[in-house]
Amino acid sequence: MYDVIIIGSGPAGLAAAIYAKRACMDMLALEKNYMSGGQVLNTYEVDNYPGLKGMNGFDLGMKLREHADALGAEFVTAEVKEIRRQGKACSAVQPIDFDEGAAVHAAEIGEEVREDKETEGFCVVTDKQIYETKTVIIASGAQHRKLGIPGEEAFAGRGVSYCATCDGAFFRDKVTAVVGGGDVAVEDAIFLARGCRKVYVVHRRDELRAAKSLQEKLLSMPNVEMVWDSVAEEIQGEQTVSGLAVRNVKTGEEQVLEVDGVFIAVGIQPNSETYQGLVEMDRSGYICADETGRTNVPGIFAAGDIRTKALRQIVTAASDGANAVFAAEQYLNER
Amino acid sequence: MYDVIIIGSGPAGLAAAIYAKRACMDMLALEKNYMSGGQVLNTYEVDNYPGLKGMNGFDLGMKLREHADALGAEFVTAEVKEIRRQGKACSAVQPIDFDEGAAVHAAEIGEEVREDKETEGFCVVTDKQIYETKTVIIASGAQHRKLGIPGEEAFAGRGVSYCATCDGAFFRDKVTAVVGGGDVAVEDAIFLARGCRKVYVVHRRDELRAAKSLQEKLLSMPNVEMVWDSVAEEIQGEQTVSGLAVRNVKTGEEQVLEVDGVFIAVGIQPNSETYQGLVEMDRSGYICADETGRTNVPGIFAAGDIRTKALRQIVTAASDGANAVFAAEQYLNER
Repeated sequence: MYDVIIIGSGPAGLAAAIYAKRACMDMLALEKNYMSGGQVLNTYEVDNYPGLKGMNGFDLGMKLREHADALGAEFVTAEVKEIRRQGKACSAVQPIDFDEGAAVHAAEIGEEVREDKETEGFCVVTDKQIYETKTVIIASGAQHRKLGIPGEEAFAGRGVSYCATCDGAFFRDKVTAVVGGGDVAVEDAIFLARGCRKVYVVHRRDELRAAKSLQEKLLSMPNVEMVWDSVAEEIQGEQTVSGLAVRNVKTGEEQVLEVDGVFIAVGIQPNSETYQGLVEMDRSGYICADETGRTNVPGIFAAGDIRTKALRQIVTAASDGANAVFAAEQYLNER
Repeated sequence: MYDVIIIGSGPAGLAAAIYAKRACMDMLALEKNYMSGGQVLNTYEVDNYPGLKGMNGFDLGMKLREHADALGAEFVTAEVKEIRRQGKACSAVQPIDFDEGAAVHAAEIGEEVREDKETEGFCVVTDKQIYETKTVIIASGAQHRKLGIPGEEAFAGRGVSYCATCDGAFFRDKVTAVVGGGDVAVEDAIFLARGCRKVYVVHRRDELRAAKSLQEKLLSMPNVEMVWDSVAEEIQGEQTVSGLAVRNVKTGEEQVLEVDGVFIAVGIQPNSETYQGLVEMDRSGYICADETGRTNVPGIFAAGDIRTKALRQIVTAASDGANAVFAAEQYLNER
């Protein structure tokens, strides 16, 4: 029985791991991917994490992970399928209905069944093992939102990308389009414009939402062309992408931009499906929690991009990790 | 007229400076001392700022400041005396009653008087100059709390210290006492025990409030002696400290510990006196503000240790700085 299980290893989860170890808590961090850092890994340059100026995203992810490792934090690569209240959950040898539809018996994955109905806490059911814990910090973050237009799925990885930092280099001296108008979209466009022959920025409004410093930088680049008031309608091509059909929402005018790649940067969605029905969420699927990380379920805390908050940044996520551990400690002390 | 004036240059103020510059805001940071970093400067080792493991406090302060400098943040060394709403304040050539009792006319300190009564915003009155700004972020932090016992003031700097990191080296091979039971007290005692012949820890309760990992480390040190259930009554000596009179709160027993130094670590108090009557505060003097930094006065934001919050840490202060700038941007956009 762990004191705390931390789900996710982005900045929030890693900060939680650091704080949990510093608090001598018996902790385990579960990460879905083999690499820690979360969305930070895919960021070309992070210049707003105070104290680490002009840091490559990958390096920042590694630095956060190394910090947790240096304190002896335990990490396991596993995907969480469900969280159950202990007693009801772990002691029942009944099928666990995974999201994917697979049914697994607790016994099948080699777990001993606890009969002590009075034990409080939670069972964290993963694709590999069931873990028992007194508290849970959900820090599973968020992911890129899809456009949902024809061609998007078909050309994914063949010209359609959600990460300029990861895939931009494949489009050197080629023509690309970025769809979106926020910080990430503009950052992506600036990044791409350094290597691409031309970069279109397709945005549904007539002004960008991105930080002004980024806007100025973008608009000063000679090989960037803004496609204002326009939405992406279809991604076209044969083996790979050859065009992006766009429609002007004011004039109705349609055109096809000849591009070799389309970078989609239209926001993020929380990775919270697994916890629906367990904890209260807002309409967008963010887990309702204030800065302490407390959810409506005592013992379950949310930290980082997955919770309801005004500003989703690396430093606010890291702060959440610290706060959630502190709240979990208080919860354990009160019992 | 600045977009934002940031008061304080600890982690919250420096993070706010970084975020304000990244947002292309016309900003000014006012710092009371000639050195940025705030309380962090006096910390021997910071091991809980995610991504910068085992960092010397002074170096962390410098790193945060360098980051702000690299982005072109403007800093001025000046002490804030008052914040006034513009129109009422800056346009009136009436005496400004400073805390110290000094009366200064706006004209006397070389400021041009604005007559435009409709201009909204704030005047930040400092000991050097009056600045006009649309928004203010108060990030002036907190400071060490005093015991208020005889000898404390008389022997300050002659055996009484509030900062083991700063002054501990003067007590090598000597005997010291730490008063307090929280994280900082225990950290101080561990630090002192490395160099001192003996360290007493005087705590009013029979258990420490500090993190368990710290407690374990402290209690394993052979030259540390716990003085439980006891309060400091008087600091004694002639030229310098020679003893600490303590009283057991359970038995009433009194004794004098023969010590060469007394390190007081009984918490912090917010540096908010200047803003009393301006913004809402709680009973301890912390400015009432949630994670967005919004106070009850639109346009004034609070960030870091000075605001009401559960956990006062470097990373939560840095997060506050980011959040306060974001809220200030939203406030300016809405006007």
